[in-house]
Amino acid sequence: MKCKICKEKAIIKLKRHNIKLCKEHFNDFFLKQVDRAIKEYKMFKKEDKIMVCVSGGKDSLVLWYVLKKLGYNSVGMYINLGISEYSENSKKKVIEFAKRFDLQYKIVDLVELGYPIPKVAKESRRAECSVCGIIKRYYFNKVAFDEGFDVVATGHNLDDEASRLLGNILHWNEEYLKKQLPVLPAEGNMLKKKVKPLIRLTEKEIASYAFLNRIDYIIDECPLSEGATSLVYKDALNLIEENIVGTKQFFYFQYVKKLLKEIKQSQSEKRYLKKCKICGMESFHDICSFCRLVKDEKQ
Amino acid sequence: MKCKICKEKAIIKLKRHNIKLCKEHFNDFFLKQVDRAIKEYKMFKKEDKIMVCVSGGKDSLVLWYVLKKLGYNSVGMYINLGISEYSENSKKKVIEFAKRFDLQYKIVDLVELGYPIPKVAKESRRAECSVCGIIKRYYFNKVAFDEGFDVVATGHNLDDEASRLLGNILHWNEEYLKKQLPVLPAEGNMLKKKVKPLIRLTEKEIASYAFLNRIDYIIDECPLSEGATSLVYKDALNLIEENIVGTKQFFYFQYVKKLLKEIKQSQSEKRYLKKCKICGMESFHDICSFCRLVKDEKQ
Ligand SMILES: [Zn+2]
Ligand SMILES: [Zn+2]
Ligand SMILES: [Zn+2]
Ligand SMILES: [Zn+2]
Repeated sequence: MKCKICKEKAIIKLKRHNIKLCKEHFNDFFLKQVDRAIKEYKMFKKEDKIMVCVSGGKDSLVLWYVLKKLGYNSVGMYINLGISEYSENSKKKVIEFAKRFDLQYKIVDLVELGYPIPKVAKESRRAECSVCGIIKRYYFNKVAFDEGFDVVATGHNLDDEASRLLGNILHWNEEYLKKQLPVLPAEGNMLKKKVKPLIRLTEKEIASYAFLNRIDYIIDECPLSEGATSLVYKDALNLIEENIVGTKQFFYFQYVKKLLKEIKQSQSEKRYLKKCKICGMESFHDICSFCRLVKDEKQ
Repeated sequence: MKCKICKEKAIIKLKRHNIKLCKEHFNDFFLKQVDRAIKEYKMFKKEDKIMVCVSGGKDSLVLWYVLKKLGYNSVGMYINLGISEYSENSKKKVIEFAKRFDLQYKIVDLVELGYPIPKVAKESRRAECSVCGIIKRYYFNKVAFDEGFDVVATGHNLDDEASRLLGNILHWNEEYLKKQLPVLPAEGNMLKKKVKPLIRLTEKEIASYAFLNRIDYIIDECPLSEGATSLVYKDALNLIEENIVGTKQFFYFQYVKKLLKEIKQSQSEKRYLKKCKICGMESFHDICSFCRLVKDEKQ
């Protein structure tokens, strides 16, 4: 197996691109895919201040690493979810990583704030993953606004997004379908732009990149994670991809293309943001989801 | 395991309906599902003359059998594709079946007509399955028109249609997506209405029904069949269905609902049929696909 570019020994085969690459050229390929996503979807520019949401897992750490390599100005934002050992270990990975690569970071500690996920889930009698989603989104938005970031970047990859798209299509979740894009524009004055620079890369490619570049990440999944459902869609898509190479990629990006076209055509309808009556953050409701969740207020 | 209705010994478990049934009540259930599909999508009425496309496989023979049970007036239409032993065996099954249940049938013999699939495929240098599709569609349409049928019924089941829908979505085949319905209306004066009365039933349910009612069908798949692709989508959907019961059914029927709504909204745009310059059948082209295929005419 020889590298398509230099003819040296290849270490990876990328079926969907029909190429084999050596370590050096795989690294090049990887950076190019991120660069291409950033430019194609106009995610951010060199002068933008980027907040990278880091969990300690492979996707977010690789993203943080690559953005530095590409010369972008990013700060990692870690939320301590208060999920016992898992949170302690992932926090440690994030701090070690930041020190090793001389990266800036910020920590929001839900335990100190009084909102550790298991406690809020119990008190609000809601599923932990749904609570976790609301709280994370809230603090990512809040910190991005408070600290004047231009854009919020997350480590979602092609498998994440294609499988989520498949799940949303199989259940025709129209509301979610409208939001499945690599870039979500800023809304109002407080909700910053959200971007997914790893969108052109698969889980396997990201894991290979992390391995080759000795990025030390937390391998455990969150112990509270439902996971099962999204894994089923991933498995189903991978089964199809193995037999019909290129399907995953075509499926997702063609969808994005169609959706962007539709959105352009219907730019007229706009939603209006209000300010949360309790905390003042912008929201589409009088009281934001976070405050409804934790302040025990009935709307 | 007890039948939900009579509490006798159940012989089948229908996960997606969350019921177990004995033989008698499964048979009832099966007929009700067909009846419901016929009425829900206004497929045909008691006085209509129905042409059932029969291949000798389980789906088409079960459909033929059930339509008789439900008191509809149907004639089986078998096309001898000229695919060696497979065609001989399937023809035998169809004739035996018709005799046993006292059903009328018609045979179109592509060998006699000079268009056996392997020959046409070779001469037109096209894939056998694509040639077979064109020729079958042509003769089903032609016979239905020539003999004054009101409607053409095929044995497509929920697995066939849901997996085809999945494949068409994964590749965003917009043209095919617009036509994935349990009923396709008649077009022009020659192209009759097409219906799929088994649409509410899965492959497994149909196989169980055939087994319980001793319907003797040809088990072999067509030896020329590509098959692989559609099987991959079926496997992927079954993998999801096993984990998230009800997905297949919701996915397909919700799609149909959305599509029917869209069609209603855009009834204005209509396509116009012409008559084929060679054979006189209605077609959207000057020369129909069949004639372009076999008459060696370049358009
Ligand atoms: Zn190389
Ligand atoms: Zn609030
Ligand atoms: Zn019973
Ligand atoms: Zn013609």
